[in-house]
Amino acid sequence: MSKRKTTASTPASPTNVILELITYNREKHSKYESLNPDELLSKLQPDQVNWVNLDGLNNQDIIEKLQAHFCLHSLLIDDVLADQRPKAEEYEGYLFFTLKMLYRIDGMEIDYEQVSFVLGNNFLISFQEKEGDLFDGFRDRIRLDLGKVRKKQADYLLYRLIDIIVDNYYNVLDRIGDLIEEIEENVYENPSNRTFHKIQLLKKELIYLRKALYPLREALSKVVKGESEFISEENLRYYSDVYDHVSHLIDSLDTYKDLTSSLLDIHINAMNTKMNEVMKVLTVISTIFMPLTFILGVYGMNFDYMPELGWPWGYYGVWIVMIVIVMMMLIFFKRKKWF
Amino acid sequence: MSKRKTTASTPASPTNVILELITYNREKHSKYESLNPDELLSKLQPDQVNWVNLDGLNNQDIIEKLQAHFCLHSLLIDDVLADQRPKAEEYEGYLFFTLKMLYRIDGMEIDYEQVSFVLGNNFLISFQEKEGDLFDGFRDRIRLDLGKVRKKQADYLLYRLIDIIVDNYYNVLDRIGDLIEEIEENVYENPSNRTFHKIQLLKKELIYLRKALYPLREALSKVVKGESEFISEENLRYYSDVYDHVSHLIDSLDTYKDLTSSLLDIHINAMNTKMNEVMKVLTVISTIFMPLTFILGVYGMNFDYMPELGWPWGYYGVWIVMIVIVMMMLIFFKRKKWF
Amino acid sequence: MSKRKTTASTPASPTNVILELITYNREKHSKYESLNPDELLSKLQPDQVNWVNLDGLNNQDIIEKLQAHFCLHSLLIDDVLADQRPKAEEYEGYLFFTLKMLYRIDGMEIDYEQVSFVLGNNFLISFQEKEGDLFDGFRDRIRLDLGKVRKKQADYLLYRLIDIIVDNYYNVLDRIGDLIEEIEENVYENPSNRTFHKIQLLKKELIYLRKALYPLREALSKVVKGESEFISEENLRYYSDVYDHVSHLIDSLDTYKDLTSSLLDIHINAMNTKMNEVMKVLTVISTIFMPLTFILGVYGMNFDYMPELGWPWGYYGVWIVMIVIVMMMLIFFKRKKWF
Amino acid sequence: MSKRKTTASTPASPTNVILELITYNREKHSKYESLNPDELLSKLQPDQVNWVNLDGLNNQDIIEKLQAHFCLHSLLIDDVLADQRPKAEEYEGYLFFTLKMLYRIDGMEIDYEQVSFVLGNNFLISFQEKEGDLFDGFRDRIRLDLGKVRKKQADYLLYRLIDIIVDNYYNVLDRIGDLIEEIEENVYENPSNRTFHKIQLLKKELIYLRKALYPLREALSKVVKGESEFISEENLRYYSDVYDHVSHLIDSLDTYKDLTSSLLDIHINAMNTKMNEVMKVLTVISTIFMPLTFILGVYGMNFDYMPELGWPWGYYGVWIVMIVIVMMMLIFFKRKKWF
Amino acid sequence: MSKRKTTASTPASPTNVILELITYNREKHSKYESLNPDELLSKLQPDQVNWVNLDGLNNQDIIEKLQAHFCLHSLLIDDVLADQRPKAEEYEGYLFFTLKMLYRIDGMEIDYEQVSFVLGNNFLISFQEKEGDLFDGFRDRIRLDLGKVRKKQADYLLYRLIDIIVDNYYNVLDRIGDLIEEIEENVYENPSNRTFHKIQLLKKELIYLRKALYPLREALSKVVKGESEFISEENLRYYSDVYDHVSHLIDSLDTYKDLTSSLLDIHINAMNTKMNEVMKVLTVISTIFMPLTFILGVYGMNFDYMPELGWPWGYYGVWIVMIVIVMMMLIFFKRKKWF
Repeated sequence: MSKRKTTASTPASPTNVILELITYNREKHSKYESLNPDELLSKLQPDQVNWVNLDGLNNQDIIEKLQAHFCLHSLLIDDVLADQRPKAEEYEGYLFFTLKMLYRIDGMEIDYEQVSFVLGNNFLISFQEKEGDLFDGFRDRIRLDLGKVRKKQADYLLYRLIDIIVDNYYNVLDRIGDLIEEIEENVYENPSNRTFHKIQLLKKELIYLRKALYPLREALSKVVKGESEFISEENLRYYSDVYDHVSHLIDSLDTYKDLTSSLLDIHINAMNTKMNEVMKVLTVISTIFMPLTFILGVYGMNFDYMPELGWPWGYYGVWIVMIVIVMMMLIFFKRKKWF
Repeated sequence: MSKRKTTASTPASPTNVILELITYNREKHSKYESLNPDELLSKLQPDQVNWVNLDGLNNQDIIEKLQAHFCLHSLLIDDVLADQRPKAEEYEGYLFFTLKMLYRIDGMEIDYEQVSFVLGNNFLISFQEKEGDLFDGFRDRIRLDLGKVRKKQADYLLYRLIDIIVDNYYNVLDRIGDLIEEIEENVYENPSNRTFHKIQLLKKELIYLRKALYPLREALSKVVKGESEFISEENLRYYSDVYDHVSHLIDSLDTYKDLTSSLLDIHINAMNTKMNEVMKVLTVISTIFMPLTFILGVYGMNFDYMPELGWPWGYYGVWIVMIVIVMMMLIFFKRKKWF
Repeated sequence: MSKRKTTASTPASPTNVILELITYNREKHSKYESLNPDELLSKLQPDQVNWVNLDGLNNQDIIEKLQAHFCLHSLLIDDVLADQRPKAEEYEGYLFFTLKMLYRIDGMEIDYEQVSFVLGNNFLISFQEKEGDLFDGFRDRIRLDLGKVRKKQADYLLYRLIDIIVDNYYNVLDRIGDLIEEIEENVYENPSNRTFHKIQLLKKELIYLRKALYPLREALSKVVKGESEFISEENLRYYSDVYDHVSHLIDSLDTYKDLTSSLLDIHINAMNTKMNEVMKVLTVISTIFMPLTFILGVYGMNFDYMPELGWPWGYYGVWIVMIVIVMMMLIFFKRKKWF
Repeated sequence: MSKRKTTASTPASPTNVILELITYNREKHSKYESLNPDELLSKLQPDQVNWVNLDGLNNQDIIEKLQAHFCLHSLLIDDVLADQRPKAEEYEGYLFFTLKMLYRIDGMEIDYEQVSFVLGNNFLISFQEKEGDLFDGFRDRIRLDLGKVRKKQADYLLYRLIDIIVDNYYNVLDRIGDLIEEIEENVYENPSNRTFHKIQLLKKELIYLRKALYPLREALSKVVKGESEFISEENLRYYSDVYDHVSHLIDSLDTYKDLTSSLLDIHINAMNTKMNEVMKVLTVISTIFMPLTFILGVYGMNFDYMPELGWPWGYYGVWIVMIVIVMMMLIFFKRKKWF
Repeated sequence: MSKRKTTASTPASPTNVILELITYNREKHSKYESLNPDELLSKLQPDQVNWVNLDGLNNQDIIEKLQAHFCLHSLLIDDVLADQRPKAEEYEGYLFFTLKMLYRIDGMEIDYEQVSFVLGNNFLISFQEKEGDLFDGFRDRIRLDLGKVRKKQADYLLYRLIDIIVDNYYNVLDRIGDLIEEIEENVYENPSNRTFHKIQLLKKELIYLRKALYPLREALSKVVKGESEFISEENLRYYSDVYDHVSHLIDSLDTYKDLTSSLLDIHINAMNTKMNEVMKVLTVISTIFMPLTFILGVYGMNFDYMPELGWPWGYYGVWIVMIVIVMMMLIFFKRKKWF
């Protein structure tokens, strides 16, 4: 219903869409891929955890079938399809959770992808915009029954997926921390426009991260308060742990923001110092040569009667006077600490 | 009662005033236009949803008749007529909601219009300052029975109208986002006063948007808390959705504000860089030519006894000395990285 | 008891003090002036609304009599006499309300006056520092029985007086808005010190307005929460309306603050642009004339053997060389976009 | 137990320590000085208000005896002896209140002293770092039975002492207000480094005042909420009044902070204006004399064939050309508004 | 489970790991060192306070044994091992508390170490990254039965350890305060890049301190609210005292932040003043010598007919004219207050 811009870069052909189902409990584990939606939905196991994963959101048909089968609210589908603020929202029959995933860092650019989850009593649906590999290692852990996930319910599964996404933020922020240090080393010596450009890129990244992290903390805080019936008391502690991680990330973000703003101050100071230096060179040169040129000018005049011109040592005298002036100038500048 | 400035640009002649009534339920739909107020009010259907729409607020007569018929409080009428902060206010018998509508973007200028709503049990009155076309498409959807609106009550109708207005904010903010990118490309290369002017216009737009959006979020939050008896429990979720959209818009606004402030930093840096460049040119030129001119001055003196003047290769020697000096200068500037 | 500075500009002679009493109900209306305090207090009507107005606070005797008659707390009298933060305070037997009134705008200067109210069950006492005319029109409305005031109790009277004072803020802020627009037009073209001075005056006004408006909102919020027994449920809505107006004023204040800070940015940018222009003129002139002067210097030397001096077209050749250099310079500056 | 720095400037010899006791009720009043701690503590009157005042905190023995007699908690003694944030803290048997006292202003420097109070049911202990005279006048008021203090209990005594300290803040802030006005008059005309230094001192004072006042408001707010059993319901209003004064002081502080930051802007602008002026003088001089010197250089060349040199009016022609150039330059600068 | 960066600088060899146990009550005291984990755990005394201290976190084996013996949650172990935000968290059977310890100041650099505590009913486990000496003095106090610690339970022990760490912050902040004063003395006279660099280092330290202190206050506030069953009512006051200290530290931090930002303003102003001075020297020199050089240029021309050249006193006249010009210039600059 909303006319809001749907998230960018959705690929054109529906063939990119991947729909898969993982069902598991302590004993069993199955994975279904390349099935059409109806077949896949018929494989759901009421006594197991069912993880339905959809990569690619441009197949209207699949989404409608999921919506029909799980009775998803139309507003929820709107939120999945359009660019949305990270949030947690309780519906009758399920909990909706959406957040931003950072998944690639080429050089300094960070790319965002919206990931949405619908958590029911024995199922979890995850919606990704594109096929990603962040969850691949975790799929193997489920299959090989590593960690606690096979012993737990769907709410623990959701925690693990959110935790993986949040841990990935640490990588991104660490990279930003490294970049800040790298820039800091250069900015004192060489306040070039390239450095300035890099600082601006950093600032921009931090602005966007802020936009992703602050509402995420809000959403997790809502979950941690224990209002949702779909998250068991016992697993709340895990969500609380993710909440702490996001708070920690936000602390780091604020720290990096302050450091970046310091970098800018340093850059500006370096620019001004350089400017001062240029001005000093100009002033020193002018101050030394203008009086000398004046003296030369005196004896370049063509008056008929200028006694000094006839003196035999006049020319050498002028040189001596000029050397004295230059030396006085140099002492003056030395005292002013211009060198 | 209030002496506050009534909102600007109210047209002079009352002929611009449009009063229309749309009544509907699941089965029926009627639309009445060009009726005088008394006739129109007699068409109200107690068992249907009645949407009374008034475009243009300068016909005192119509407003008084509406006020009398719906028992509107005099403070409410004041708020409709005067420039008012977005707010939601519960009265006995109806809910009052007012917000700002953005309806035109010529170049970079955004125009504001105040839209007010009075929501009763089976009626909705909307007050607009001018005739607008934002709701036209929606009127057709009602007539053609598209979407859920014909199946729902007046509170859903109010939600849809607010949603349409809020969606329009997305267009405005997207345009601002595009402008920021456009300016960003130029500001590094060409820090002209025109760019600076554009940044200032952007800043101004964001300041005004902020003034419109923050109180709107407050007003929606009041509604979402479920205090109003005129909004059914079942439709609260829709208001909650609009609330999320406005929160998302405010996040974007803050992001754009930070980006605009970065643009200003970039502009200032570009200005300073340009200034530095100018100073360097001046300093390089002065530093090269002042010593040369000094040397020329020496041999422009008219002393009777200056041995060098008589040397046959003196003139060429001076040229060689000068070339050496220039080359030393160039090496010095190269080392200082002035080129 | 407090040693705090009493508000400035209290006139020296007690003759400036005006004490008047207006009593009214639906049927009756009386006004007493130029009475001594004891006579006046004897005129109070228990079954009517009694408005005691005191202009001028330097007559100790009157204040003591009022204090004794209405059992006013000594802290309240301190607050009336000394410069006080806008606040609402409930005492046993009455509600105390104090705020700042803006009453004159000569050019850009705003003057403040503290107005205090004591609201009892059937009386309202108003304390003003000086005789003002802001309430004059309203006195006539009471006499002529216009509006609702004669039908209502003392709490409505207090609302109307506060509303008049708050409406007056709109005038002041509108004037500031006009000034900002006026300055904005000039500051791009002519970044003079006069403009800068005006911006600073604006900033100062906004700082003082902020100091008056923020605590006023706080005080009204306290009243609106309905804690006071002296304001009837039915009239709370009016206070809530004033509260909204003050919130609106504060929004405008914040907007104007941001705009003023933008003006400062624009001024600084205009200053820098002007500086850059000056530097460019200097650099262009130096860069053009220094090489030319160098060439002239060469042929101003007095070497005995300088072949060029003897060439018949040497002089014209020098001119040609110089013209070529100037043209190359101009092309160089054109490319650098210095014109 | 805490290793925190004890407050500075505690004098070396214990002889500076003053311990005095004032006991009073409606009828009686006694004052004991120069007694040793044990004697003094034996003079305490259970049916009167006992005010124990200790000036100077370096006599370990006295403090230990007070601690033993009044059962003071060791943490409380730590807080009295070390530099502590203003706070109110309820202990079993007494209320602890500590705040900063400003007691001297030599020129622009403000000195801080920590004053701590322990309020019990019929006693008040006050700890001062040094002998001060701020309470002297008040001691006389008690002796002469002026005001209400003799009619009230120890909680009113504490209020009066806090009020005296807070009123003293008004003096300090008024002095700062005067300084801001004084600087403002100078900073436009004469942006000297002395002015800048003064602004920095002001800023520093405001930073320290802020550090003293914000926690004080917090502490008073705790008291005003009526949680303490040692402050009677009836006297809470007085504390509420002090709370309002501190809020008022904080408002003024914020206002002064904004004004000081404006002063800095004005100073920077004045500096830049001055710089611009210097640059203009340089540019005007260079722009006028460089072309003239060029012309002179032309006719200073020694070419054998330069027809103009032989013209009889050539010399005067050069003068005319130069005067025309100067006049054109002056018109150009006039148009650019450089004068 | 978390992929977060574990805290840096963990030494490579597990030999650096120290595990020790101190058990005590009013009568007994034992200390066990250099035992293997199993032996050590067997020495735990159920009727005494058991303090298990682990310095060095890279021995997986020890940690697993502690985890098994005390039933520590896996999330808790994650938090101990990875860089974590200071926090307090209640688990079933124990309270988890983690904070940052500052332990060395070489020149201006501050080093951080994460210290974690697990507080149970009769035990306290402390985890340090490296062997430190901050607690050494306190260990002796326990042994020698100084202070109250032997009379109290494990919750008091935890308070003392946190208090020691927080007191250490005071040392760090005092050093920063001294540095600010030291820089302030220099920055007015000598705005060198070294000073600027120092200010930036200060800013950085303050940013990191802020990151450590704000969440610490949050964690302590959680404890002070008395939610934990492992901290007795009677000892809450001690935690409340530490909370106050941290609030005091944060106030100082904010104060230092403002002072550091003032230092930056002062540095920038000093830089600009110096720049202005350089420009003035250049302008004075140019303004004096350019007109003189012009005059000399006039009489350097080679016109055949220039009457002044033949005047006998022409040469001396030129000198007089030049001296007059210089004196006029000096008066002009004096008036402009350029000296």
